[in-house]
Amino acid sequence: MPKQVDHPIILGIVGDSASGKTTLAAGVAQILGEDRCTVMCTDDYHAFDRSERAKLGLSALDPRANYVDILEQHLRLLRDGHAILKPLYDHARGTLERPVYLQPKDFVIAEGLLGYTTRTMRDCYDVKIYLDPIEDLRRKWKRRRDTTQRGYTSGEVEESLEKRKKDAPQFIHPQRTFADIVIRFSRPEGANGSDIHLDVRHLLRPTLPHPDFSPLFDGSNHADLRLELSRDSDGKPVDVLEIKGDISDSRAEKIENLLWDLIPEAGHLRDQVGRIDVSNGAPMSHPLALTQLLVGYHAVKASMGERAY
Amino acid sequence: MPKQVDHPIILGIVGDSASGKTTLAAGVAQILGEDRCTVMCTDDYHAFDRSERAKLGLSALDPRANYVDILEQHLRLLRDGHAILKPLYDHARGTLERPVYLQPKDFVIAEGLLGYTTRTMRDCYDVKIYLDPIEDLRRKWKRRRDTTQRGYTSGEVEESLEKRKKDAPQFIHPQRTFADIVIRFSRPEGANGSDIHLDVRHLLRPTLPHPDFSPLFDGSNHADLRLELSRDSDGKPVDVLEIKGDISDSRAEKIENLLWDLIPEAGHLRDQVGRIDVSNGAPMSHPLALTQLLVGYHAVKASMGERAY
Repeated sequence: MPKQVDHPIILGIVGDSASGKTTLAAGVAQILGEDRCTVMCTDDYHAFDRSERAKLGLSALDPRANYVDILEQHLRLLRDGHAILKPLYDHARGTLERPVYLQPKDFVIAEGLLGYTTRTMRDCYDVKIYLDPIEDLRRKWKRRRDTTQRGYTSGEVEESLEKRKKDAPQFIHPQRTFADIVIRFSRPEGANGSDIHLDVRHLLRPTLPHPDFSPLFDGSNHADLRLELSRDSDGKPVDVLEIKGDISDSRAEKIENLLWDLIPEAGHLRDQVGRIDVSNGAPMSHPLALTQLLVGYHAVKASMGERAY
Repeated sequence: MPKQVDHPIILGIVGDSASGKTTLAAGVAQILGEDRCTVMCTDDYHAFDRSERAKLGLSALDPRANYVDILEQHLRLLRDGHAILKPLYDHARGTLERPVYLQPKDFVIAEGLLGYTTRTMRDCYDVKIYLDPIEDLRRKWKRRRDTTQRGYTSGEVEESLEKRKKDAPQFIHPQRTFADIVIRFSRPEGANGSDIHLDVRHLLRPTLPHPDFSPLFDGSNHADLRLELSRDSDGKPVDVLEIKGDISDSRAEKIENLLWDLIPEAGHLRDQVGRIDVSNGAPMSHPLALTQLLVGYHAVKASMGERAY
């Protein structure tokens, strides 16, 4: 697809630990084409390793435990099309490793705990996403990931969840207000604990030119798909798009068609969506697939030079 | 001392392995005030560790074995007053380590094998020094350092010297032509092998406003101090300042006075010079002390906004 702007498009994905950042980043990269995406983690900018943080009594979520100025500098360099030598934090071992040479491709997906902390950082993004799953879901995801992929015991995960109870409201949650889209996954009422049919709620701030969803509604809302004008918890006017986990295939397809039709330049990418698999082999839910598509849509639009503010 | 320019002064010291870069950098930092100097090594920008280079058959001196674009970027950032996250190469172990946060002070002394390789790098410096000791002396220094400080055996040092015989002319020596001052230490004729009374020859290119040395000569050259118009090996017109190892204390003092009188703003730094010790406890030779002073003089002058080109 032709690109109309002369700098890489920077897509931010910020949220608390285990809020689904890596999954969303991978899904969006697949839609945009992995060979055209540079995915980076802003948690690599930790200034101290695990044992140093313990000694200093600093949380990894604390900006003072991160090279915030270097992250600002690197986001700016990437946006200007320059390569960076990115630091590297080993999450499994808790150590800082030799840095990695990183060149920005057409799209840079920057995901991590901190990303919208300072004005300088925020100014680097074309699209800013904040992941805000309901807390029960996030805790479940964190337990599963940290015990299976990061070598923690269940007890250690609980301890970490407890410790971060104070840090997240102080350092992570305040970034929510700067996002163009706040995405909240939740379990439908009466769900049996499976994550397959999660509902999703997109809070759409008027800081991006969102697609016109009105053709989907023929004048009225449906139970499985709703769009409503609302106020965010901070009082700001927002649109709220709700997609239920049990949305019918036909209506999900209608949303897909609408979004793809709005980015005809990216039509050849459409095949990618059908090929997305979640790692455990389960079929992907419509809310997750549509979420990835909507985020990808905004990245493509930004690359065509469309940006509201 | 007041500083008239609003960016850090970048002083480059380039030369082959064991040509005296670290010694000169430390000496100049002491003159300028260590608390006002950031000393960095451009050899930290190796892209591969020792074993990777061996596999690839690449010399550490080869620009392709170094992140040249990142070094350019970092020199520019330092010159603009920004901190960098500098990579770190462990010379003793031959490994790449976690990077180091580095803030530019009033003076940044950047020393290493590569520093003047590209135009972008060269444009970052206020003063460019190239160290070019006679080859016998350099080999002796290399043997001594690599066996005592870097854990190599004599056999390994000889092997490294042999291997680099091809690399140095290809990658290091071509940088000589870009230096404002080329400094060559050599043994006086008939010297018994001691390094205490080395002669020094400064090749002064008209790319910097050199001090007016004429008051030292009262119309004629002396055997222990000479200044002559000459042509460099590349044909360029240069001044050549020669200071003999056995220069008298009184004449050395005359040169010192001349230089200090030309930078009255730095008068309070003068005490430092008398306090310089070489690490082995031997008294510092006049040629080495005067070399450090002359380089420091140019850094101070640059900080006052004086630069010819």
